[in-house]
Amino acid sequence: METVSTNRSYAGTQGVYSHASSETGTGMTFAVYVPDHPEGAKLPVVWYLSGLTCTHANVMEKGEYRRAASELGLIIVAPDTSPRGEGVPDDSGYDMGQGASFYVDATEAPWSDHFRMRSYIERELPDLIAAQFPADMERQAIFGHSMGGHGALTIALRNPGRFKSVSAFAPVVSPLNCLWGEKALSGYIGGDKSAWRQYDACALIEDGARVADILVDQGTSDNFLDEQLKPHLLAEACAKADIPLTLNMRQGYDHSYYFISTFMEDHLRWHAQRL
Amino acid sequence: METVSTNRSYAGTQGVYSHASSETGTGMTFAVYVPDHPEGAKLPVVWYLSGLTCTHANVMEKGEYRRAASELGLIIVAPDTSPRGEGVPDDSGYDMGQGASFYVDATEAPWSDHFRMRSYIERELPDLIAAQFPADMERQAIFGHSMGGHGALTIALRNPGRFKSVSAFAPVVSPLNCLWGEKALSGYIGGDKSAWRQYDACALIEDGARVADILVDQGTSDNFLDEQLKPHLLAEACAKADIPLTLNMRQGYDHSYYFISTFMEDHLRWHAQRL
Repeated sequence: METVSTNRSYAGTQGVYSHASSETGTGMTFAVYVPDHPEGAKLPVVWYLSGLTCTHANVMEKGEYRRAASELGLIIVAPDTSPRGEGVPDDSGYDMGQGASFYVDATEAPWSDHFRMRSYIERELPDLIAAQFPADMERQAIFGHSMGGHGALTIALRNPGRFKSVSAFAPVVSPLNCLWGEKALSGYIGGDKSAWRQYDACALIEDGARVADILVDQGTSDNFLDEQLKPHLLAEACAKADIPLTLNMRQGYDHSYYFISTFMEDHLRWHAQRL
Repeated sequence: METVSTNRSYAGTQGVYSHASSETGTGMTFAVYVPDHPEGAKLPVVWYLSGLTCTHANVMEKGEYRRAASELGLIIVAPDTSPRGEGVPDDSGYDMGQGASFYVDATEAPWSDHFRMRSYIERELPDLIAAQFPADMERQAIFGHSMGGHGALTIALRNPGRFKSVSAFAPVVSPLNCLWGEKALSGYIGGDKSAWRQYDACALIEDGARVADILVDQGTSDNFLDEQLKPHLLAEACAKADIPLTLNMRQGYDHSYYFISTFMEDHLRWHAQRL
């Protein structure tokens, strides 16, 4: 692991790091914020997965998480959203390829060699975080935005007990039921939709996966609300499964970091209470 | 004036606007955050001037001012740092030309036609803000970062009574005594250093200009501290002039928005107390 940069911010250090990933076969960059802490102490870890087109940097620059994270003593890890660079396949759209992994392990050509973001986020990067940072891996939480909200929900649902809490801003709740998901999952996973269900929060819940509770904030002026995000599908799945869902519909807010930053502190407090 | 974008954020609206400036002879873009307020109410205005290389967008995206501004009921105006575009002169360095006006009215060729940022910030843009936003122009404050800290200090000192308060993050306190100032002011204003004194906070104070008090935050790990910023010169000038200066040297912080955002709330509270 190499240190790309460190900056003191609030009562802690915002770092950017890179490493050669064996899962993706590329260099990968990620951001970690570590609050000040006593020598030898280990802090809980909150994973933030970003949305389409983002790198590790978007939430780091615009997410406004450091004030609350330093107060609450939370390590914040922000991975990239896909492998990148020469030799990594891409798509002409913003909604597939580089910056748009949908956090799957791709099985289809040309994606399957590099697009292994499920294994990267679920296994490889946690091992690196545990080894390199003062992280208490018994106390982890996960959240994300849009495609990253999808990532957070599905990773939490597939790994019962690993995360004390899960939340999302404007998540893609069902790739089986939106055009983004239709395009990305058919490309990455292939045409057999039964294989998509492990990458669909609503389907995972229907198939029996459980988490203790879920917090979602969603702007009512989000351009993607009706066509792509469809939080009512998550509400229906959670209701049937008796999973307590706090779904806050936020009047006038859109899909941007102006929305996310507004409710960032609420989400970090939600996680801190459960960590 | 045209609206470029508006986004709801915290309890207010972050807008970006553009207009044709008669001072600069170019289009100019600026950001205004307006907290929610009762119909017909007018809110105090805090001006934020940005540093070298920045546009209106840097502080808007990374400055983390909206939480405190909405709580305190402060309009935040963030202008661009220079005229830009085709036909506007530039320099190959980052420290002169587009993005680097030093908030002067240039008198020298090729700059004097467009580089009229002093008059733009002191006269033209305030008139536009007063006309287009719910702004109480009897309650104004000003602050900024680096070159913009220089702008804030010199504009406050040259306009006694206009601003209830002034503060800065890592300001250039004396262009007469640093390489950035030497290059920019000799280019914009010419070789007669007596003409530079109106653009030098320390010289303005020596020449009799006064403000009620000044707040400065400065990181000790700022790469520009010793060669360019030299806050001790401001401390000496303020001490001689009996201007109360709160100079916070912040251990380990650098020149970036990771530093600025950390102390943004402190500065907004400083201004709110005086507005």
